[in-house]
Amino acid sequence: MTDDTTTTIDRPAPGVLPGAQTLPGANEDDPRRFTLSALTGDSRVTPNDELDAWLAERTEANRFEVSIGPISELAGWRIDPERGDLSHESGRFFSIEGLRVQVDERRWAQPIINQPEIGILGILVKEFDGVLHCLMQAKMEPGNVNTIQLSPTVQATHSNYTGVHGGRPTRYVEFFRAPRAGRVLVDTLQSEQGSWFLHKRNRNIVVETEEDVPGHEDFRWLTFGQIRRLLTADNVVNMDSRTVLSCVPFAAPPSDAAAAGADRGADGDGYRAALCRSMLGAPGRHTDDEVLSLLTEARIRQRLVQRTIPLDEVEHWRRSYEEITHEDGRYFRIVGAEVTATNREVASWSQPLLDPHATGVSAFLVRPIDGVLHILMQARTEAGSLAGAELAPTVQCIPGNYKGRPAPPYLTEVLAAPAERIRHDSIQSEEGGRFYRAQNRYMIVEAPAGFAPRDVPEDFVWITVDQAMGLLRHGNYLNVQARSLVAALPTTW
Amino acid sequence: MTDDTTTTIDRPAPGVLPGAQTLPGANEDDPRRFTLSALTGDSRVTPNDELDAWLAERTEANRFEVSIGPISELAGWRIDPERGDLSHESGRFFSIEGLRVQVDERRWAQPIINQPEIGILGILVKEFDGVLHCLMQAKMEPGNVNTIQLSPTVQATHSNYTGVHGGRPTRYVEFFRAPRAGRVLVDTLQSEQGSWFLHKRNRNIVVETEEDVPGHEDFRWLTFGQIRRLLTADNVVNMDSRTVLSCVPFAAPPSDAAAAGADRGADGDGYRAALCRSMLGAPGRHTDDEVLSLLTEARIRQRLVQRTIPLDEVEHWRRSYEEITHEDGRYFRIVGAEVTATNREVASWSQPLLDPHATGVSAFLVRPIDGVLHILMQARTEAGSLAGAELAPTVQCIPGNYKGRPAPPYLTEVLAAPAERIRHDSIQSEEGGRFYRAQNRYMIVEAPAGFAPRDVPEDFVWITVDQAMGLLRHGNYLNVQARSLVAALPTTW
Repeated sequence: MTDDTTTTIDRPAPGVLPGAQTLPGANEDDPRRFTLSALTGDSRVTPNDELDAWLAERTEANRFEVSIGPISELAGWRIDPERGDLSHESGRFFSIEGLRVQVDERRWAQPIINQPEIGILGILVKEFDGVLHCLMQAKMEPGNVNTIQLSPTVQATHSNYTGVHGGRPTRYVEFFRAPRAGRVLVDTLQSEQGSWFLHKRNRNIVVETEEDVPGHEDFRWLTFGQIRRLLTADNVVNMDSRTVLSCVPFAAPPSDAAAAGADRGADGDGYRAALCRSMLGAPGRHTDDEVLSLLTEARIRQRLVQRTIPLDEVEHWRRSYEEITHEDGRYFRIVGAEVTATNREVASWSQPLLDPHATGVSAFLVRPIDGVLHILMQARTEAGSLAGAELAPTVQCIPGNYKGRPAPPYLTEVLAAPAERIRHDSIQSEEGGRFYRAQNRYMIVEAPAGFAPRDVPEDFVWITVDQAMGLLRHGNYLNVQARSLVAALPTTW
Repeated sequence: MTDDTTTTIDRPAPGVLPGAQTLPGANEDDPRRFTLSALTGDSRVTPNDELDAWLAERTEANRFEVSIGPISELAGWRIDPERGDLSHESGRFFSIEGLRVQVDERRWAQPIINQPEIGILGILVKEFDGVLHCLMQAKMEPGNVNTIQLSPTVQATHSNYTGVHGGRPTRYVEFFRAPRAGRVLVDTLQSEQGSWFLHKRNRNIVVETEEDVPGHEDFRWLTFGQIRRLLTADNVVNMDSRTVLSCVPFAAPPSDAAAAGADRGADGDGYRAALCRSMLGAPGRHTDDEVLSLLTEARIRQRLVQRTIPLDEVEHWRRSYEEITHEDGRYFRIVGAEVTATNREVASWSQPLLDPHATGVSAFLVRPIDGVLHILMQARTEAGSLAGAELAPTVQCIPGNYKGRPAPPYLTEVLAAPAERIRHDSIQSEEGGRFYRAQNRYMIVEAPAGFAPRDVPEDFVWITVDQAMGLLRHGNYLNVQARSLVAALPTTW
């Protein structure tokens, strides 16, 4: 244990912190306990050197082969002869279908993953030595660039945990299904990639237990501080972990501990103080209800009409024996994967994967306004959005798509930012169970001093960190890329 | 003006009233101003006798003929020869399609109204003599039992207000479309009847103006108190008004004014005091996050899968030249309506209407728990729900469907309640623009003294009035029937 565990953490007055109010089954002390854990960078239960060795060892131990092959030869999957849709013979899991979309005046059609199930992304937490620890899993997914990443305690589709596989039951799932013994600290339905999934949501849930929990070689107890360190590395903490972490309502760290956690020179202090004020619920540029109203306005303006259609009716896309692909090779393709694993619920399987054609960039532009850190969010409607526009990062795009065309707002500012204004910069993977080597560069970048907060385009809005936390108590307000960046915020404390 | 306008209204301490926090563009004084208006039972601007005369006169003045005829002869509408879907030739407005539904283990198919547009339900408010007044419209709808009902200032589909009709522009719509001059006091997307509509939402919005507003014979300025009186009558305040009113965050009335507004004898005082505590944000049986978690749990348990299908593939339903109907005559039928009106955007038109086969009952069972009034809500998933289960009234059903079968929970208790426990009882219409003479009996009933709050079935949850108000800042938490009952709560003050 480090000295951090003895730090006193400032508690805001009750009612000051809407984003960190009493949680389901929880008590008002929980935000402080989350932050205490986030400031605890090492642990007696899983010391850091053991943690790193374990991750390496698990990667080694899990022989895992993925071979990409034709979609037409995937065992257990069939292509509908009339529609061209690709689906599992059981009718469960997911299917690849066509979607006709209208967003305001833009109209297009595209393939989309249809998985009308709500999965569980659950982190089990327990106190050791007075500090909350998360039970994290070294989990391999066929689409991962590096086989093993750190995943929640349970990361399971409804088909998984109800045993449609006919495989092993999902370990620890009993802590997350009602009736359960533990205290629910976080519980909310959150969206996934709207460009690739139709109406997909998962239950993001954190449960605290006081029971003895049986161990397993694929699982380790880590503090939020240990996970915070791993979030600064590329491709270690998987998407499913990041989205659950984004919903955890941390209290603001004490300013001295925040200062100790980063040493970036003089102007860094201004950032940290502004971040703490932003977490403490200081008034922002807009009231909470103004933010909701701006999002409502965007949902009206970006009018969304969706209709599933046969895959073979999707214009500009081709289905061959091998793959489903855009005629110009843009966006993504759908390929087949034959997977052989040793520690999944079943030892080998076949499935389609969505292979995006390039790496994207997702970035928050942040700046203090009246001394309070604000994040510039963009209301953005995607093909498969359930409820219309959600708040997305300031920049969310694949830069390669804009060669010879005007770049989207703020892309240039973000990519050209000098190092001292870059607070977070990492490459992270999207869900390796559906996407093949899908990566994004995630950045948190301070806006330059002269940046005028008023001069933002329609559909952009400045919100505080506390407002983001308040919105994350509900689903379909922050999209999954924005949530990955919210999860990265503690790396900038 | 009555003496009520001079009443001093208790202000809760800031932060005590999450349901009535500062609203978009609004200030923290607004809940008090709403309540002041709700306690103002008459107005110099539109005195009550003039109001009643105006409603009668408008009904008389608006010659309006509706003749029900075959769906196959509706001018401007077509039946798709391959699918059987009934839709407008323009591709706009709405269509009647088939929907295949699974909710947990229940599976069925049914016709459904598909209208992928977000309409505006907007009430313009303005202060006269220091009291907020609502600009309300005497509006005829083809499905109304009584031609004219009181509707919001603007009640328009996207097709309406963008002029697809080719008719007159929607009056006063400029107050509700961005950029607008007034202050936005309420702004949220709310669902409509999930059993009849696929994913339908409308923007519920209240805007305050200080401008001069041109008058019109179909519109009058009314206090919330005048509307409160009309809500006790049958079929006067239409559904669209009721849903907007449900989103208005009233402050608790002063207890003496509440007592003056109802005179039900000794035990009535207990009700009123408990209601005021409930509005003031006194702690309830569950925390806000527990309520959200219980709803999340219900959304998982009541797993919803939807797929639109051709109408002609819907089992147990028949499409004839005349109508679309269930083979046993249950649920509803779709008929054609030829409408001739004098003061709508267009003078005559044809459209399908949904004709429910019987009158339903929607009721809140309420009771004090530790001195704080609680409402018993039911998490309920309907065929066309967008986000899964929403909170519905304790009872929401068509009693006629249960002849010879066990009644749904609490139906018997509600229908057999003695008069002294019935706090509200009225017949109200559902949206007359889509439904033909659809009516429900709306009741607010006190549970008997011996009623044990713990003994409620799975998916039922007790919430306070303040929690209901907090949930109504967001969409898809309270269904439209529950919102009609929330709108009726001020009649019990």
